Parts: sequence; structure tokens; C-alpha cells
Amino acid sequence: MSSIFTKIISGEIPSYKVAENEDFYAFLDINPNAKGHTLVVPKKEVNKLFDLDEAMYNSLMSFSREIALAMEKAIPCERIGMSVIGLEVPHVHVHLIPLQKMEDIQFIKKVTLQPEEFEAVSKAISANL
Amino acid sequence: MSSIFTKIISGEIPSYKVAENEDFYAFLDINPNAKGHTLVVPKKEVNKLFDLDEAMYNSLMSFSREIALAMEKAIPCERIGMSVIGLEVPHVHVHLIPLQKMEDIQFIKKVTLQPEEFEAVSKAISANL
Repeated sequence: MSSIFTKIISGEIPSYKVAENEDFYAFLDINPNAKGHTLVVPKKEVNKLFDLDEAMYNSLMSFSREIALAMEKAIPCERIGMSVIGLEVPHVHVHLIPLQKMEDIQFIKKVTLQPEEFEAVSKAISANL
Repeated sequence: MSSIFTKIISGEIPSYKVAENEDFYAFLDINPNAKGHTLVVPKKEVNKLFDLDEAMYNSLMSFSREIALAMEKAIPCERIGMSVIGLEVPHVHVHLIPLQKMEDIQFIKKVTLQPEEFEAVSKAISANL
């Protein structure tokens, strides 16, 4: 069965897309820790980050860096935090999260955004790529 | 003033070293979320991950991958999680954490290890590099 991220990448489930290339798809987390919380996902469905082959891992990290640099420009924050966990969805995803304080990356608190806010922030990040 | 990590790298503050090369130093977090929690630090003192130049960032990610693969072999766990936050110490550090459950990467719970346990786990990771 396809992962939820594969369904997002195929368009079966809608998403607020930030960027896409041949290998990766970046979009806003719909249940964000903070405004601008972005997920970067390889199109190839692999469970664990360190099971990606070296070239794909390096490309994922490099692509994530480009997204993070655009996020820094688009979103007021102290810095962009990065986290890869993956215990819930068995399809590699890099969390990029605009941080003001530690709890923004602890996955203990969520923020609610309206559709137009998701739309605006995804476009703002894209515009800075 | 040197960061605490620069003092660890220079040996001024002792550490349980896991690996070292020209650019990076990996050692056990002395206040770990889980047994085997490792920090990977660039020797050059830079505050933010995404302020590293592209080559240094890519090398750090690549070196962190090698450490994580050794950790997977040395430490029983579901997977290795990765997190870069940096709100407390302004010197880039990649957290690599053996995960069993979500809270292992939430920085809300710490484990206490004896010196001989730190010694054993650092040697076990090194031996798998």
C-alpha cells in the first residue's frame, strides 16, 4: 500500500507544495509545529533515512538545505531546525521547522493555520528558492 | 570565547570520543536522551547549520551518515533519529539518537549512564565504523 506521502506526491491527497524535482517533493506539514513547518520527502518510498543509498541521502540533504535557506528568507525565526524521526510514517521525511524556542521542535505543541495562511507561506518559501 | 564543543574538541573538556577527522568530531552526549546519543560537530565554530558553506554542510551530513550506520550496528534500536536544533549552544551539532519511541527524540527525558557504560558504547560505535 502506498504511504500517505506517496499519495501526496501523486496528487491523490492535496498538499501545499513548496518545491519539487525529479527525486524529491517538499510541502507544508498540515499539522505543523510552527508556521512554515515543511516536509521534504524522497519520491522513492524508503522507510529509514539511513537505508537510503549514499547518493540519494546526499541529494536529499542538499535539497533540504536549499529549502531551509529559502525558509530562512521567507519566515521570521531564530533559525531553521531539522529533524528526521520516522516512527509514525514509514517513508523518509525531513522536518524543517522555523524555530523560536525549543518546544517548536519537540512535537508537543501544534499550531492551527487557515488554508489561506498555508497557501501564503508555501508561496513565500517557493518565491525565495 | 570558545564554545563548550570547541573545548571538547581541543581536549580541554574530556569526552567519550566516537570518531574524528580533519573537519569533524563525534562524541557521546553526556546528558543523553537514550544510550548511544551522539553529537557530531564541525571543528570550525559556526553557529547555525544552514550558515555552513555548501561543501562543509554536505561533508557534515555525509560524516553523520557514517556515524549513524555504525550506531545502527552497535546499538539495538528501531532506527537512528537525527535532529539539529542549536538554540542552546551556538556551535553546530547534529544529534544522532537511537530511537525506540518518539520521546527519545523529544528532549523531554534523559537517561543516566555510568562512566563504564559511556566508555563501552563509544567503543562499540567506533568499532563498527
